[in-house]
Amino acid sequence: MKLNRILLTGIMALPIYVQAEVLPNIPPIPADNVQSAAKIELGKILFFDPRLSSTGTVSCNSCHNVMAGGEDNRPNSMGVHGKTGGRSAPTVWNSGFLSVQFWDGRAASLEDQARGPVTNSIEMGMKNWDVVVERLKTIPGYNALFQAAFANGVETITEDNAVKAIAAYERTLVTNNSAYDQYMQGDKTALTIEQIEGLNTFNELGCQTCHLGANFSGPQLPIGQGWFRKFPTYNSEYDSQYNLLEDTGRYQVTNQETDKNVWRVPTLRNIVITAPYFHHGAVPTLDEAVRVMAKSQLNKDLTATQVQTIIAFLNSLTGEFPEQTMPRLPGMMGESVIK
Amino acid sequence: MKLNRILLTGIMALPIYVQAEVLPNIPPIPADNVQSAAKIELGKILFFDPRLSSTGTVSCNSCHNVMAGGEDNRPNSMGVHGKTGGRSAPTVWNSGFLSVQFWDGRAASLEDQARGPVTNSIEMGMKNWDVVVERLKTIPGYNALFQAAFANGVETITEDNAVKAIAAYERTLVTNNSAYDQYMQGDKTALTIEQIEGLNTFNELGCQTCHLGANFSGPQLPIGQGWFRKFPTYNSEYDSQYNLLEDTGRYQVTNQETDKNVWRVPTLRNIVITAPYFHHGAVPTLDEAVRVMAKSQLNKDLTATQVQTIIAFLNSLTGEFPEQTMPRLPGMMGESVIK
Repeated sequence: MKLNRILLTGIMALPIYVQAEVLPNIPPIPADNVQSAAKIELGKILFFDPRLSSTGTVSCNSCHNVMAGGEDNRPNSMGVHGKTGGRSAPTVWNSGFLSVQFWDGRAASLEDQARGPVTNSIEMGMKNWDVVVERLKTIPGYNALFQAAFANGVETITEDNAVKAIAAYERTLVTNNSAYDQYMQGDKTALTIEQIEGLNTFNELGCQTCHLGANFSGPQLPIGQGWFRKFPTYNSEYDSQYNLLEDTGRYQVTNQETDKNVWRVPTLRNIVITAPYFHHGAVPTLDEAVRVMAKSQLNKDLTATQVQTIIAFLNSLTGEFPEQTMPRLPGMMGESVIK
Repeated sequence: MKLNRILLTGIMALPIYVQAEVLPNIPPIPADNVQSAAKIELGKILFFDPRLSSTGTVSCNSCHNVMAGGEDNRPNSMGVHGKTGGRSAPTVWNSGFLSVQFWDGRAASLEDQARGPVTNSIEMGMKNWDVVVERLKTIPGYNALFQAAFANGVETITEDNAVKAIAAYERTLVTNNSAYDQYMQGDKTALTIEQIEGLNTFNELGCQTCHLGANFSGPQLPIGQGWFRKFPTYNSEYDSQYNLLEDTGRYQVTNQETDKNVWRVPTLRNIVITAPYFHHGAVPTLDEAVRVMAKSQLNKDLTATQVQTIIAFLNSLTGEFPEQTMPRLPGMMGESVIK
């Protein structure tokens, strides 16, 4: 864990130390899934192809909309046949910097994460990956795309290659050069005085104890090693108001008592455009989410000014969204895979 | 109605006359909705914005997927909460060349068409356009986008402007330079011998009596004046097999007895990638669709060779899909319009 620390001088009476990690252009790349242009392009096509769902209506992008904040702005997502679950879709932007995936960290890698929703009955509803692979093989254009991405001389349309391609595409989804990053790279005009005040408040209160690192989601840990916190740490009236205790989070993965209501620390990048908030999307606004966090995690009641300046600072974490071309989905010739 | 006719010499014993209209780059533009870059960009954003649906999950693109054949490859589309109706989504590609919209021609223009699905309870499910407009006004970025597109000094976020922008974007969705178009422009190598044979068969049988014009959907008529045909014209065993008579089509629009089972003639461009077929998507494959058409409209039973060559020809109608950049959907600041 490497944290560069700089001396921040602002309008505060006392100088305070804050992290100054700028978001890299590329997240860590696993040795067994190196990036290539052909793989990324295939991954983008698969990410946008609704034929990866039983109804032909739900793609990865349906719930992780890369034309927006990388999720769906809904409390919970809507899968095939209008089905909904209990969790809110996390943003896919900058997800390559997370060392575990899903709110409860049940997948170690983006590759493993991509296996899940496709065969989840309330998400994309495919019976199993064999059916997915058979369907992909039925669509003529996919063979050449997989061949170009995985030219290994053997069968290329496989579950493993499909999730590798999707993960490779997702690792390109990085929003750097936010106002915060510009500021940390030396442009002292990139943040307003209110935003600097908010950053200081954020650090003074202790928010950065959990939301640290370049992605504000914890230190860059090895893949599979998560950065988790109990939420709520302190009980309050918010527990019942926003039903914070019902979903036991990581406990359902490990069955360890100490994992009850434990969650992966989410990124704060682009947080202003990813309402509603928390694992179940039960808190509709960011100002309320900031209050709930301060009370539940730090046992602090914030003033209106503190909330306002923190939100001003959080606005500085919205990065630049790279321009992307739309993928072309390979067509079926005179028939459909959706029956 | 202007038809250029050329003498086609192929492998046929007798030369036959066929139309030779090449698809233009741009469809007819209405005087009250001229194209502009800002309007087209706004239209693309609206076309892709799922917040135009009650659930925040269904955009125009959900059922008219421009990354594919401009529709959803489903017998019928799936709207909010997984609801389905009785009609199959027509392709949005080259829809600007149609003089009426919807299978039953109930909308004169693309502008009028765009009003429909947004407030249809089984499609995008918004209560009414007032609610849509209020929602768009709540999303900060839309004001600047509408101002740029409709700088007329008055209120710019309106239903009329929204549908104008969507229509303007749709008029850019043209797939020209297909093998057929290249052939008709003089490249005699653009079609295979089988495709030329199929084109001749298509014309000899009489398919072009209805599927004529640059878009193979009838002559270029004034907006609002449709090119309709009774389907089936001849009764056959297909009527019950594919339930061809249940939906009375245009009769539901006009209440005229002569409009029973009357439909707008659909385009044949990109037909191979838009299975399944007909107004209710009841025919799963193109070869069967060709047989049904020949029997129901021309009272002819085709040989296997005729079907095969016609399909070879229809393959030549798949055009070039212009590369498009993904739109960026304007974000809400710290809250969501989806409740």
